[in-house]
Amino acid sequence: MLRNLLNNIQSPQDIKKFDKKNLKYLCEEIRKNIIEIVSKNGGHLASNLGVVELTVAIHYIFNSPEDKIIFDVGHQCYAHKILTGRHKLFGTIRKFKGLSGFPNCKESKHDPFGTGHSSTSISAALGIAQAKVLLNKKGYTIAIIGDGALSGGLAYEALNNAGQLKKNFIVILNDNEMSISKSVGSMAYYLSKLRVKPYYLKTKNTIKWILNYLPIVGDKTKNFVLKIKSTIKKIIYKKTFFEDMGFSYYGPIDGHDLNCLIQTLSSVKQINKPILIHVNTKKGKGYRLAEDNPGEFHGVSKFNIKTGNNNSSNTDFSNAFGNALCNFAEKDKKICAITAAMKNATGLLNFSCSFKERFFDVGIAESHAVTFASGLAAGGLLPVFAVYSTFLQRSYDQIIHDAAIQNLRIVIAVDRSGIVGEDGKTHQGIFDVNFLNHIPNVTIFSPSFYSEINKMLEFSLYKCKGIAVIRYPKGRELHKPKDFLSSDGAKDFEIYGRTDLKIAIIVYGRLFSYVCLAKNKLEKKGIKVCVIKLNKIKPISTLIFDVLKNNFTTLFFFEESILCGGIGEHFTSLLIKKGIILKIYIKAIDNKFIEQSKMDQSLQIIGLDENGIFEFIIKKIS
Amino acid sequence: MLRNLLNNIQSPQDIKKFDKKNLKYLCEEIRKNIIEIVSKNGGHLASNLGVVELTVAIHYIFNSPEDKIIFDVGHQCYAHKILTGRHKLFGTIRKFKGLSGFPNCKESKHDPFGTGHSSTSISAALGIAQAKVLLNKKGYTIAIIGDGALSGGLAYEALNNAGQLKKNFIVILNDNEMSISKSVGSMAYYLSKLRVKPYYLKTKNTIKWILNYLPIVGDKTKNFVLKIKSTIKKIIYKKTFFEDMGFSYYGPIDGHDLNCLIQTLSSVKQINKPILIHVNTKKGKGYRLAEDNPGEFHGVSKFNIKTGNNNSSNTDFSNAFGNALCNFAEKDKKICAITAAMKNATGLLNFSCSFKERFFDVGIAESHAVTFASGLAAGGLLPVFAVYSTFLQRSYDQIIHDAAIQNLRIVIAVDRSGIVGEDGKTHQGIFDVNFLNHIPNVTIFSPSFYSEINKMLEFSLYKCKGIAVIRYPKGRELHKPKDFLSSDGAKDFEIYGRTDLKIAIIVYGRLFSYVCLAKNKLEKKGIKVCVIKLNKIKPISTLIFDVLKNNFTTLFFFEESILCGGIGEHFTSLLIKKGIILKIYIKAIDNKFIEQSKMDQSLQIIGLDENGIFEFIIKKIS
Repeated sequence: MLRNLLNNIQSPQDIKKFDKKNLKYLCEEIRKNIIEIVSKNGGHLASNLGVVELTVAIHYIFNSPEDKIIFDVGHQCYAHKILTGRHKLFGTIRKFKGLSGFPNCKESKHDPFGTGHSSTSISAALGIAQAKVLLNKKGYTIAIIGDGALSGGLAYEALNNAGQLKKNFIVILNDNEMSISKSVGSMAYYLSKLRVKPYYLKTKNTIKWILNYLPIVGDKTKNFVLKIKSTIKKIIYKKTFFEDMGFSYYGPIDGHDLNCLIQTLSSVKQINKPILIHVNTKKGKGYRLAEDNPGEFHGVSKFNIKTGNNNSSNTDFSNAFGNALCNFAEKDKKICAITAAMKNATGLLNFSCSFKERFFDVGIAESHAVTFASGLAAGGLLPVFAVYSTFLQRSYDQIIHDAAIQNLRIVIAVDRSGIVGEDGKTHQGIFDVNFLNHIPNVTIFSPSFYSEINKMLEFSLYKCKGIAVIRYPKGRELHKPKDFLSSDGAKDFEIYGRTDLKIAIIVYGRLFSYVCLAKNKLEKKGIKVCVIKLNKIKPISTLIFDVLKNNFTTLFFFEESILCGGIGEHFTSLLIKKGIILKIYIKAIDNKFIEQSKMDQSLQIIGLDENGIFEFIIKKIS
Repeated sequence: MLRNLLNNIQSPQDIKKFDKKNLKYLCEEIRKNIIEIVSKNGGHLASNLGVVELTVAIHYIFNSPEDKIIFDVGHQCYAHKILTGRHKLFGTIRKFKGLSGFPNCKESKHDPFGTGHSSTSISAALGIAQAKVLLNKKGYTIAIIGDGALSGGLAYEALNNAGQLKKNFIVILNDNEMSISKSVGSMAYYLSKLRVKPYYLKTKNTIKWILNYLPIVGDKTKNFVLKIKSTIKKIIYKKTFFEDMGFSYYGPIDGHDLNCLIQTLSSVKQINKPILIHVNTKKGKGYRLAEDNPGEFHGVSKFNIKTGNNNSSNTDFSNAFGNALCNFAEKDKKICAITAAMKNATGLLNFSCSFKERFFDVGIAESHAVTFASGLAAGGLLPVFAVYSTFLQRSYDQIIHDAAIQNLRIVIAVDRSGIVGEDGKTHQGIFDVNFLNHIPNVTIFSPSFYSEINKMLEFSLYKCKGIAVIRYPKGRELHKPKDFLSSDGAKDFEIYGRTDLKIAIIVYGRLFSYVCLAKNKLEKKGIKVCVIKLNKIKPISTLIFDVLKNNFTTLFFFEESILCGGIGEHFTSLLIKKGIILKIYIKAIDNKFIEQSKMDQSLQIIGLDENGIFEFIIKKIS
């Protein structure tokens, strides 16, 4: 029986009018809404279903936007969006110009801080709370962080720093025993210990009682008992890690029990200390298929609600990389693989099964992953770290300081490089080329097709010195011209077309496919071009300059990353140094972040799809 | 009475022949040696004096290089260097081609992993230990980490990940209650609690005894006592944070008591778990002036052993920035300052005294610092984060994800940008331009003189959108030509010389001084040049292209950072886009790390001092 309660909610204030029984029905409606929309648009499912009651309870007790609510990672903010005036727009989530799949301060006053990457919420909330103190503003600041995100060092740095705040600062630990995969590491184990002790508070009270009422009879016994008391007191002085960090700890409580949530949230409001509430939730709650397979239903594309099927195929760059790595690992026991909590998504599932002892899931800890890999390399192994481009941004210093300076041989498989589509701004892989290109002792390969990965991986493992990077895009390989004779990654660059022409196009990675399509279109207009596809984008092979010295008068350079500091600008500087004079036009992403939309739509908007490339060239040469 | 024991030590194996009494004398000799050499060469003093006994004890019990010893940060490795065959070379420390002031795997087989930045040791050691396991190699892996470094998230990520290892992995927590300044944050407070409980182990044993021997008499009492027992058992199950993280915890022990250190280190060798030994040490131990002022004697230049005087003046870029910031903070209560444990060195001491409630020392936590600053900005304040260029590398993702994407107004004062001198490779500030230049919503100022900071700070605080960066070098301002009419930072760029010439030189920051000196030299040879000094290096003012459209035929660009992806390459690409055709020569740091030596010596070697610039120009135009 549907009550259409959601239609009565224009702002979170409206929830407060509900009686508690209706809150339960509200949760049901929200769940139904989330499942329905995500099954159509794709998005994050399991994490959102897990926090429905928690989100409702938060809005029932607190007053957004005066109280600031910050969702860590942010992929669990759907119920929050639905409850904060965005219910009618919810069907547009993750679509071009639609609602973002993450909190976004430009979208609503109820999103005080944008998130997307993990483990930022406590730091940001601490800043916001501190600003409230200094500006004498009212209200609470609440960070909701998952147990997975707690493996990130940034969360710890913030916890360590939060003790300074005296009040109105609340961290809610949403403990579902998962990051995207099962949570790993000692903190996860520690939380699992806490998790099974639901009466911690009660226990602590019991002890206090014992201390007060333990009978004291006889002098000898008295001393003995006093000694016990004092010892116990010392021990219980600080109990949980969070109390060690200066927080008042409450929990664990059942994150699907609305009454308990509401009671706890309202009772901690008056405490003059930073608060940590430990909430146990179930990822995928309320949708059996997601409850059973929360990992599979973490981030999903369009699916059938009844069967859970999503028609997605397993052939993509991640898996092509994973298979190639397994082949090498079969032959070479020194090869290890590292993931930062993304085993499946980075194509390492098979590796983790076949070579268990050489597989390391380090948690959501990209900085550690690189320094750990450097240690493995220093110890004589061949570590391969597979990671999304956007998350590798967290390892920038470690790549320089721990790997590159020591010229250690580590391999970084950069997944989701370039445009990623619906996840939007926070997840685009448009910086890796720029931040890796200027680091000494780094080699970068950029395949356009699956078949090239094998050779590039071989080079990375056995031929390169220092850091070797293979960067490949999200999803599948694109168009490959039939008359393109590929070296399958064996050559540093390949030439597609005649070299006695006037116009050359340089390109790398996935854009090669679009450039080839544009080439066809240009040829139909009578314009002939030679395409040079870079397989190795750093360092640039000097042989390429011999080719360019020929008849070429005009050079186009296309790249799916930031223009400034990209390969195109560096290539230009090399050309000038070589004294080769050409008209040069670079087309790349110019000094902006890229909003969400389908991958090909994004490339179209930027002007880097078939048509965009075609028209850019036409415009410049006419 | 000197025994010249050090002369008998060619390798750490030689220490093992000593009787314990002589070890004490050995420590004395090492201390004397360190004080003497650091007083001449400059270097890290207090931290090294604090770990003399610890280092001797480690080498007495363990077998380097089979056992791998990794010093976190590494500025406390002097005793280790002296004991591992480098005693005779110790006088060359921090000098050009001399011993590094940090562990360096190219220098000795006893340095298994290079360090320099904080909080990396546990990650690296974990990798090395894991490699030992997989390659079936013998030996222990030992990370020595300070309590300050424990505030870095990377250390936590590694601790969280270390539980997987079963044996031969030892973390020694060198707790001196300091990072460079006094340690801050909840972990430091927590450690201070542990520190004053020297009998933790004994206490734990007492409880065990109680549990075993608590008399059980009478059924009612029996149940009651059993309940107590079970409750106590639950509570003592895990005691310290480190045990929560899967470590066996030992300590705290006196880090200057050789017997105790030796006994503990040898007794933990057989334990089948990761070990954490908590050692209390005193920074500066054995040199009264350093004991009394460990902060002042952390990193020192040449000083008088008797008086401690070092003739250093307080006028440098850090202080010029700090003073300017105080002036603005006086008038605007929204201005906050943030440091990552480097209050004094970044010129924030006065600010921290005058505006205590607006000053935040977040610990060695650069990533958190930026996200926290972003939170402050989102909350309506004006945060300024002062940080060394090399350490800002740790905030790369936070700058993009938390500040730039949301276009939040934070100011980053990048200290020690460019060449830093004796600290060498791990500390050079040669990447900040490259990694900041390609991030959207960032403005970068680069003063050449103190007088420019004020205006640049005003722009950063009140005129820029998004992130504003002011980057300035280590030390003092250099030569300023008398006939140079400066706008004191008010203009985006300034012209020094006539604009109707053929040769233009573009430069920014400290190198302007060297370029001016080179200009004089060129003029003596009859070669006239126009110097364009960039004050704002991102974005580049388009007005500059109007100047360059004049008569110029040749353009030189000098910069004190990495060539690839630097301002020079981007400037070139802008020129080409504008259709301005010039011969362009860029001179910068080309794809390499820069070894230690005095700052001016480094610039000479790179070819970026007066002579280098002069000769580069002469060569290209002749």
